[in-house]
Amino acid sequence: MSRIDGRNNDELRPIEIIPNINKFAEGSCLIRCGNTHVLCTASVEDKPPRHVPEGEGWVTAEYSMLPRANRERSRRDISKLKLNGRSAEIQRLIGRSLRSVVDRKKLGPWNITIDCDVLQGDGGTRTASITGGFVAMMLAFQKMMENGQLSEYPISGYVAAVSAGVVNDVPMLDLCYEEDSNAMVDLNCVMDDQGRLIEIQGTGEGRPFTLEEQQKLVELCAKGIRELQAAQKKALG
Amino acid sequence: MSRIDGRNNDELRPIEIIPNINKFAEGSCLIRCGNTHVLCTASVEDKPPRHVPEGEGWVTAEYSMLPRANRERSRRDISKLKLNGRSAEIQRLIGRSLRSVVDRKKLGPWNITIDCDVLQGDGGTRTASITGGFVAMMLAFQKMMENGQLSEYPISGYVAAVSAGVVNDVPMLDLCYEEDSNAMVDLNCVMDDQGRLIEIQGTGEGRPFTLEEQQKLVELCAKGIRELQAAQKKALG
Amino acid sequence: MSRIDGRNNDELRPIEIIPNINKFAEGSCLIRCGNTHVLCTASVEDKPPRHVPEGEGWVTAEYSMLPRANRERSRRDISKLKLNGRSAEIQRLIGRSLRSVVDRKKLGPWNITIDCDVLQGDGGTRTASITGGFVAMMLAFQKMMENGQLSEYPISGYVAAVSAGVVNDVPMLDLCYEEDSNAMVDLNCVMDDQGRLIEIQGTGEGRPFTLEEQQKLVELCAKGIRELQAAQKKALG
Amino acid sequence: MSRIDGRNNDELRPIEIIPNINKFAEGSCLIRCGNTHVLCTASVEDKPPRHVPEGEGWVTAEYSMLPRANRERSRRDISKLKLNGRSAEIQRLIGRSLRSVVDRKKLGPWNITIDCDVLQGDGGTRTASITGGFVAMMLAFQKMMENGQLSEYPISGYVAAVSAGVVNDVPMLDLCYEEDSNAMVDLNCVMDDQGRLIEIQGTGEGRPFTLEEQQKLVELCAKGIRELQAAQKKALG
Amino acid sequence: MSRIDGRNNDELRPIEIIPNINKFAEGSCLIRCGNTHVLCTASVEDKPPRHVPEGEGWVTAEYSMLPRANRERSRRDISKLKLNGRSAEIQRLIGRSLRSVVDRKKLGPWNITIDCDVLQGDGGTRTASITGGFVAMMLAFQKMMENGQLSEYPISGYVAAVSAGVVNDVPMLDLCYEEDSNAMVDLNCVMDDQGRLIEIQGTGEGRPFTLEEQQKLVELCAKGIRELQAAQKKALG
Amino acid sequence: MSRIDGRNNDELRPIEIIPNINKFAEGSCLIRCGNTHVLCTASVEDKPPRHVPEGEGWVTAEYSMLPRANRERSRRDISKLKLNGRSAEIQRLIGRSLRSVVDRKKLGPWNITIDCDVLQGDGGTRTASITGGFVAMMLAFQKMMENGQLSEYPISGYVAAVSAGVVNDVPMLDLCYEEDSNAMVDLNCVMDDQGRLIEIQGTGEGRPFTLEEQQKLVELCAKGIRELQAAQKKALG
Repeated sequence: MSRIDGRNNDELRPIEIIPNINKFAEGSCLIRCGNTHVLCTASVEDKPPRHVPEGEGWVTAEYSMLPRANRERSRRDISKLKLNGRSAEIQRLIGRSLRSVVDRKKLGPWNITIDCDVLQGDGGTRTASITGGFVAMMLAFQKMMENGQLSEYPISGYVAAVSAGVVNDVPMLDLCYEEDSNAMVDLNCVMDDQGRLIEIQGTGEGRPFTLEEQQKLVELCAKGIRELQAAQKKALG
Repeated sequence: MSRIDGRNNDELRPIEIIPNINKFAEGSCLIRCGNTHVLCTASVEDKPPRHVPEGEGWVTAEYSMLPRANRERSRRDISKLKLNGRSAEIQRLIGRSLRSVVDRKKLGPWNITIDCDVLQGDGGTRTASITGGFVAMMLAFQKMMENGQLSEYPISGYVAAVSAGVVNDVPMLDLCYEEDSNAMVDLNCVMDDQGRLIEIQGTGEGRPFTLEEQQKLVELCAKGIRELQAAQKKALG
Repeated sequence: MSRIDGRNNDELRPIEIIPNINKFAEGSCLIRCGNTHVLCTASVEDKPPRHVPEGEGWVTAEYSMLPRANRERSRRDISKLKLNGRSAEIQRLIGRSLRSVVDRKKLGPWNITIDCDVLQGDGGTRTASITGGFVAMMLAFQKMMENGQLSEYPISGYVAAVSAGVVNDVPMLDLCYEEDSNAMVDLNCVMDDQGRLIEIQGTGEGRPFTLEEQQKLVELCAKGIRELQAAQKKALG
Repeated sequence: MSRIDGRNNDELRPIEIIPNINKFAEGSCLIRCGNTHVLCTASVEDKPPRHVPEGEGWVTAEYSMLPRANRERSRRDISKLKLNGRSAEIQRLIGRSLRSVVDRKKLGPWNITIDCDVLQGDGGTRTASITGGFVAMMLAFQKMMENGQLSEYPISGYVAAVSAGVVNDVPMLDLCYEEDSNAMVDLNCVMDDQGRLIEIQGTGEGRPFTLEEQQKLVELCAKGIRELQAAQKKALG
Repeated sequence: MSRIDGRNNDELRPIEIIPNINKFAEGSCLIRCGNTHVLCTASVEDKPPRHVPEGEGWVTAEYSMLPRANRERSRRDISKLKLNGRSAEIQRLIGRSLRSVVDRKKLGPWNITIDCDVLQGDGGTRTASITGGFVAMMLAFQKMMENGQLSEYPISGYVAAVSAGVVNDVPMLDLCYEEDSNAMVDLNCVMDDQGRLIEIQGTGEGRPFTLEEQQKLVELCAKGIRELQAAQKKALG
Repeated sequence: MSRIDGRNNDELRPIEIIPNINKFAEGSCLIRCGNTHVLCTASVEDKPPRHVPEGEGWVTAEYSMLPRANRERSRRDISKLKLNGRSAEIQRLIGRSLRSVVDRKKLGPWNITIDCDVLQGDGGTRTASITGGFVAMMLAFQKMMENGQLSEYPISGYVAAVSAGVVNDVPMLDLCYEEDSNAMVDLNCVMDDQGRLIEIQGTGEGRPFTLEEQQKLVELCAKGIRELQAAQKKALG
């Protein structure tokens, strides 16, 4: 039984990463995972937050959806004077994921802000943000190497992310919005390029799930992440 | 003496309007005026604000810049818990300009929200938002005609906008950021397709200006607006 | 055909400027334009905002209406946790207008804050705020000259402002609230004492307007501004 | 030993109450207690807050100082996005005090909002707000009687308020700012026209105080309040 | 006629003060006055607010109720983005009361924050907060003496607080919630251990009250405060 | 090699659940996991949020730390006007976890709010909140059964949660704060009483982790959760 868009159960949506989409940012890309489109920029500033030890660097992320990224228009955060709780959760995840492969001492004293703005959302915006955010960050590092702000790449690996889920009791990779809405279980993995976990977040949305299901979903994610990392490398040239 | 980008003094930057850029919005376009890129979406909802008489429609606009739309990253409004004063001013201008050609009784009872999100800003973002916002609105009206929400187009004319300014005592059309930074006088015009004014806003940024200068700038704008309206018509098919 | 309050079409409302209305502010006045009453104070502080070059001065303005300045009570901004969009727009206009005649180097390193609080509003509050705000600023400069904080007046001219509009197709000067509510076109001018424009903002509220109409309205404003500047000079002694 | 402004220890500052100062409010006055000037308006609306039993009326108060009401300019609440804690405390006091003499059943279903905006503050702004707020409320009740919104006055007495304090161990009535700054004890009384207490708030600012001192201060307040109520009656005609 | 819980009119509710309830705070206690339970912590930091003269110390208080401290759940302040007006008033009272016996020069340069969080509220939470807050502050001072941050106790006396009220025309000490809801008059006293007043706040909630009633309520409070101070001393060992 | 507090690597901290700690809430408990103390209350109201289908019920959670729950005092959310991002993330997790075993149709039309307020935090506050929040919720359900608001228990299983982590390359159960600060990997599991996963969240804080490590941590959690569910059952009687 094929999926709503005809993909196999272990198949990613078409992936496209357009680097240097923004004229001003030190690093940037537009990442398209099917109909999910996220604009990622990396900005280099010289003031890490206060809690960072003197001389070290930092990476932080902000995530937001444009009001009409979705099927229905949603009000802007500033109209409600509250950062959307979901956005707060997601941007913490993006930041943690990218920092996990960054050597903060080598990055010092620079502060990198990764902005992930969802232009159009069709499921998987948080994982697309991580995958695209990594590319934007690497492009900024390239520029910093060129202009002497860095003397070596302050990273220990590549990072990408994808989701998998159980729909009608069938495990599937990279759910689109319509699949996600019907998923019983939803699991996101962030991995490095040695297949190790950086983050795992799984939720039984319709029912609890077994350890076997969890393991199967992680395997699907691992496969997808290998392909996403190939796309990242291609975009980075 | 030629301009920084080689244009004549009465020449627009290259203009590009890509319609239907967003899969979900009832109307949308990406407008590019040189390096200024604005994503405009029109969303149709059925609840006009309370102050609107029963049965009439309404058009409102929201304007925002992505954090890295500019040379330096700026903090998001939600981080400061305050709507940027400049954004507040601009979105009021966009809304007024678009409403000026809308017949609110014919639009009733629909509420149209025009979101103008600046992806990249190189001067003239407010006028690009009006020009692009009109296209998004018209595309939404087309869709509403097709699905029977409207029985006739609720508009009385086309709207477009552009700026002109005095740089080194020379009047010029459609200032880019670098010209704008050095302008002594800056004037925005919003006009309909009969060459009448809808809005005029002029500011002596470096010095006061004479009525003759004001008149010259309006003439430059009128020329530019005719060309922008041709681009609008082409995008609308 | 006479106006609602019996004035000629090119006639200002009665103007009254009471200087030094506030015991504590370095400069202050109460300006009454008919039934529009605005309390303007100028406060001298020693910390211009960060974006101002070291050693230079700055002038900024804040505008607010008391809750019962109008026919109906409006909620305070702090109850809604949002600065009123209209107030944001107006205070930017007041600040730009006053800065246009100020020599920021001569003013350095002082920061002047002009507070314009509308006690009663009957149309034309933004232009009354500019006219009265200029008087308050000048009174503060007088005091700074006397106590040695300034060695010369840091201004290049006088600033005043007024509106004109088209009501029932008739151009009229200085609209009161009831006229303003019925205006087809509304235009504000800020001018210096040489009759040059500092700001011009015109809006077709009910219909677009021609260049000829715009020109006629500017002429009406120029006449009114000459009279307002006479009143300013009288108040400044 | 005379006071800083030559008054006797049991003497009020000159009191002036100008009724109907605002053209739009149902009731209003400007109250001047020496150099303390408060603009009080009473607005009649038809929606009491939700917690009020169906059919009953309500009185609420809001208190605010203009930015330059004081010796130094203070930032507006909206700039800090926080209602000043002191204002919050004071407006609760004003509301409670006025409600204490109002028959909410007779007032039903009207909601009265008393706005007390301090134009200039030289000590005693909260008590001046209560004294002036009562006058504004009564003027609104007069108007409601005239237009048939009320069939009888919904009050059981007159309310006025004043402070007294201990300065250099000497009890004094109606402290001005300079005395207040040096007071060891500060006590506010709100009383009705039968000399009964409605509110009493005393604070040992520099040292604790004895029951005898407290009693002496209440007596001073009682004397002052009788005089204030005479001024209220004169203003109400 | 006995009270709802069988107490005499001049009898406190059972009082219990458990010191050192919090493992991390420099001083802390849980105070139980009948069914009113308040967790008080004192935190020592080294940065007094800016308005404090160099070298001096400061004491500030914050007060909050847990959402389900009461019969009905109330929304958190952060959900409404506004500090509850009542909380603002109460925390100002707690801070003033504790500072009244603190020698700010001897405390310098330390800043003490007293957090009073009401776990369960059955009337009298503000007075319980003062009584418990004083104990928490003293325990912090003990610790600061032990570790050398202070060389002498920076206090001039003990502080405790209690309320009294008139219910059915009968004066009673230490009202519980149900009595408080029916009180005609409610009066809070803060006193030192010499029976002198630090704060007095009385409100005629249902009717004005006479000076004789006020005096009787103060006497009841004085009796209760002596007993509360005995409980404080026992808790402090 | 023993742990900092002498526990075995697969040993929980001492667990204590005191039911009915709050006099007013429909359900409540104080849960102590070692030095982590969380007060959990369940409040029953009759208005589920708007997005819930008519007739169904809902469970939502709020999480907050008292200012001095930690080694250093932190500012209250309301002082910063922002809900802490970490709190936003955690309360979403608590709500999802509890809803996963609730039958929303059987619960209809009631809305349950679970407030988890951390009185003292020593690691594991989010998992303690889930474990304690479930007990508070069940106690509320008991009460609703007794008073006829429910006719059957609207749950499909028990929910508890715990963390495990890798410290110095050794997997350990239920990290206290000091262990958590040094953990290389941190993983939280929420499970039902059949050993199935409801939520899993793992983070490589110091380094990526392998699938084997992840599996080992889940096993430790499963053991701990069985013991926690025994404690829940004991508390529920």
